[in-house]
Amino acid sequence: MASAYTQLEARFSKIALLGEAIGMLSWDQSVLMPKGGAAARGDQIAALSVIRHDMLTDTALSNLLDEAAEDNGLDSWQAANLREMRRKWVHAAAVPADLVEAISKASNACETVWRSARRDSDFASVVPAFAEVLTLTQRMGEAKAAAFGCSLYDALLDAYEPGGRSAEIDPIFDSYARFLPDFLEDVLTRQTARPAPRFPDGPFPIAAQRTLARRLAETVGLDFESARLDESLHPFTGGIPEDSRITTRYDESDFTQALMGVLHETGHAMYERARPAAWRRQPAGEARGMTIHESQSLLVEMQVCRSRGFLGWAAPIMRDAFRGEGEAWQAENLYRLAIQVSRGFIRVDADEVTYPAHVILRYRLEKAMLAGDLPISDLPTAWNAGMRDLLGTAPPDDRLGCLQDIHWYDGAWGYFPTYTLGAMAAAQIYAAATAAVPAIPDAIAAGNFAPLMAWLAENVHGKGSLLSTAALIKTATGKPLDDTAFKAHLRTRYLGD
Amino acid sequence: MASAYTQLEARFSKIALLGEAIGMLSWDQSVLMPKGGAAARGDQIAALSVIRHDMLTDTALSNLLDEAAEDNGLDSWQAANLREMRRKWVHAAAVPADLVEAISKASNACETVWRSARRDSDFASVVPAFAEVLTLTQRMGEAKAAAFGCSLYDALLDAYEPGGRSAEIDPIFDSYARFLPDFLEDVLTRQTARPAPRFPDGPFPIAAQRTLARRLAETVGLDFESARLDESLHPFTGGIPEDSRITTRYDESDFTQALMGVLHETGHAMYERARPAAWRRQPAGEARGMTIHESQSLLVEMQVCRSRGFLGWAAPIMRDAFRGEGEAWQAENLYRLAIQVSRGFIRVDADEVTYPAHVILRYRLEKAMLAGDLPISDLPTAWNAGMRDLLGTAPPDDRLGCLQDIHWYDGAWGYFPTYTLGAMAAAQIYAAATAAVPAIPDAIAAGNFAPLMAWLAENVHGKGSLLSTAALIKTATGKPLDDTAFKAHLRTRYLGD
Repeated sequence: MASAYTQLEARFSKIALLGEAIGMLSWDQSVLMPKGGAAARGDQIAALSVIRHDMLTDTALSNLLDEAAEDNGLDSWQAANLREMRRKWVHAAAVPADLVEAISKASNACETVWRSARRDSDFASVVPAFAEVLTLTQRMGEAKAAAFGCSLYDALLDAYEPGGRSAEIDPIFDSYARFLPDFLEDVLTRQTARPAPRFPDGPFPIAAQRTLARRLAETVGLDFESARLDESLHPFTGGIPEDSRITTRYDESDFTQALMGVLHETGHAMYERARPAAWRRQPAGEARGMTIHESQSLLVEMQVCRSRGFLGWAAPIMRDAFRGEGEAWQAENLYRLAIQVSRGFIRVDADEVTYPAHVILRYRLEKAMLAGDLPISDLPTAWNAGMRDLLGTAPPDDRLGCLQDIHWYDGAWGYFPTYTLGAMAAAQIYAAATAAVPAIPDAIAAGNFAPLMAWLAENVHGKGSLLSTAALIKTATGKPLDDTAFKAHLRTRYLGD
Repeated sequence: MASAYTQLEARFSKIALLGEAIGMLSWDQSVLMPKGGAAARGDQIAALSVIRHDMLTDTALSNLLDEAAEDNGLDSWQAANLREMRRKWVHAAAVPADLVEAISKASNACETVWRSARRDSDFASVVPAFAEVLTLTQRMGEAKAAAFGCSLYDALLDAYEPGGRSAEIDPIFDSYARFLPDFLEDVLTRQTARPAPRFPDGPFPIAAQRTLARRLAETVGLDFESARLDESLHPFTGGIPEDSRITTRYDESDFTQALMGVLHETGHAMYERARPAAWRRQPAGEARGMTIHESQSLLVEMQVCRSRGFLGWAAPIMRDAFRGEGEAWQAENLYRLAIQVSRGFIRVDADEVTYPAHVILRYRLEKAMLAGDLPISDLPTAWNAGMRDLLGTAPPDDRLGCLQDIHWYDGAWGYFPTYTLGAMAAAQIYAAATAAVPAIPDAIAAGNFAPLMAWLAENVHGKGSLLSTAALIKTATGKPLDDTAFKAHLRTRYLGD
């Protein structure tokens, strides 16, 4: 008879295969599916999700988890695998099936109302449905908190950032919130004092954008024998390590958005592709969480591909891709374009300096709402006050304010902080990589990503979920995550020269 | 407590959803997947197939089938549904799991060897792997034959043509085999006596071919709000009724192959789309079998779209699609091109007159091999003798002979006859449709498929699997399937004017 642990590996391998199938169906839904297929696709994904949930909450699996916990012969990877198996089991088993279904229905209903509420900038119209989502999310959080033995917020956060704790996030975000107002003022003053960079003349044909994006993704390390680049309304990375599926959205009047978007998704894909092959369909082999995932996309996009070094190499390639001419195609101009900063209302359009303000605002507000300290009806007022505090500006209406993001209305609570934790981790990890391998920046400036990717594969990607996020960052960079490296990066880039 | 029958419906709905998911994964594999994803995709499909197989062979399901058999309150659709549930159960449960796995492995191995054997025209090299596939297929056939209470061949045939019986196929095929030699001689003599039709000057840009193919598929009735047209090495129809996925293969030097291929697949898709919605994920709502399926693709392609009437309407559209000029674009010339006949070696390239000869040959040979009457080593000799008898010509090597088709080497035995039964059913059904609705040919000649599709939806598509294939054809056409209508169609088209 195979050991309990070995039996668990077999079960989780099947669970992972179901996840891969669900991922493929979702990818097709976002990228290719004609709209007539929507209802049936929902049924298909729901059916597979139920089967997966049933596998995960099977009593026999729970018994095997208990039995394997007594196994003293597990090595560190196996022990990590068992730990992550149990985490998945808690997330699935802690919440009663009827609550899961109620949340799914309430989120779907709320998302529908939210779409028209956002269009009409009519927050009041979404309040009843939103309150229902919040109440049910609180119930789910309480159930998971009891199972994990942590706070309600941390239990929700755990679904996106395993082991994440708000007590560790608060000081990091508070520090950045204190830093930002004066720094932003300095950056904007300096930016205004210089001549504005010039946007190259378009249009930029989509076919040429696609060819360029593929070329640069290949430069980062993506191999299109085992990857695809497609289009979707909301760019994302799907697929599996052997078959990455990245998407983007093209705009003929601006090639930089699609291009930087592809490089961002390539960062995600590179992480997935270098996960430990020996743990391919096991929990320990999965990406560590959303913070590290976002750190890898932002490391490629923000730390590297918006750098003067990379753009110096890429500028003539970009120019030639569009048969461009003139000074707008000079590297320094393209670099200035890539690092423009502004006080804006919309998170997804924000630059790397102001982006954290959007996240810190949402993080504080979602904690307050979940704790019952902020009534939903007060959200617009609190939102605008927070925007003024953090960014010195407030939106003219809720469409550009608290209605802009789908997350809360669709039931995703505890997700937002990972964006900014990822940005800070990206800076800290890139600083560690260049300290360990000083040749990396020169290699990047020559279009050679191999030294960087080798270091990341060894120190981040290949670790899978062996370590906690905190331990992974500490091991890779020598210190716990904070905003020091991120602020240093911003000072150098925006005030340095 | 829900009745046994009702419980079965719920179970089969889940089984159908797994089938839809598997179908989607297979579609992606054939159409889009980068080659790096092949192994993982195989694992994903295998995992879902095992789950589906386990659901189908669950003891509780078998008990419910027995219990529901005692239910006297079922209406005719429910009774048909129960009958088809049992058929699926027999196919799954009759064969031991280890034999299923052995066949899968042997077929995969043989297919690999076959690819190089075909390339090198080296039949001897595939004999050992092929013998293994045959032996295992015979074992599977014996197991199914015992369960169904029919012959080994009929038990294998049942997987593609439910209820099909070789005793009913033999006289139909024998009749056509007697008819063909003299008829073919007459057709070729007449064809040679006339001026050869001229192929329009190319090249034919793929974008223009695609636009034209979509336009004509829409004319047949396909709605691209709930369908896609893509490319694949081997054209096929996938997807679901609400999201048809048809594929084709383009050749810049010849637009007719892709176009007729798309129209062929559109016939398949129209059948799937008009299956009875009330039985959407139940066995009774499925397409009746491969004979009726092929009849619907061939009805659209061969009976209708290669007709003088349709091409008279379509010729100027084709010409304009490629900005063509000259006499080659005249309707009569395009019609003559569409009905060229020749003695060829390759089944998939054959015209409608000679195609049945290729099928009858394979049908006779596979019966003989399965019965042990034809040793595998004698296949090439028997093949060539059969080609001479039926078509008056024999291939110069086995690449153009018994190695040309993947079917047997990949474990598909009992599939071939459905191609020609479908062609004959297409003629008989189209004759019945035009007899019932005399306005159909004139409508087709005006690019209006609505009357034809309405008749097919009512008399064929909407019947799902309510009736047996034999009963469906008898009900729709007034008589059992034979080759009378097919021969009449060929005489009219090829000797009529």
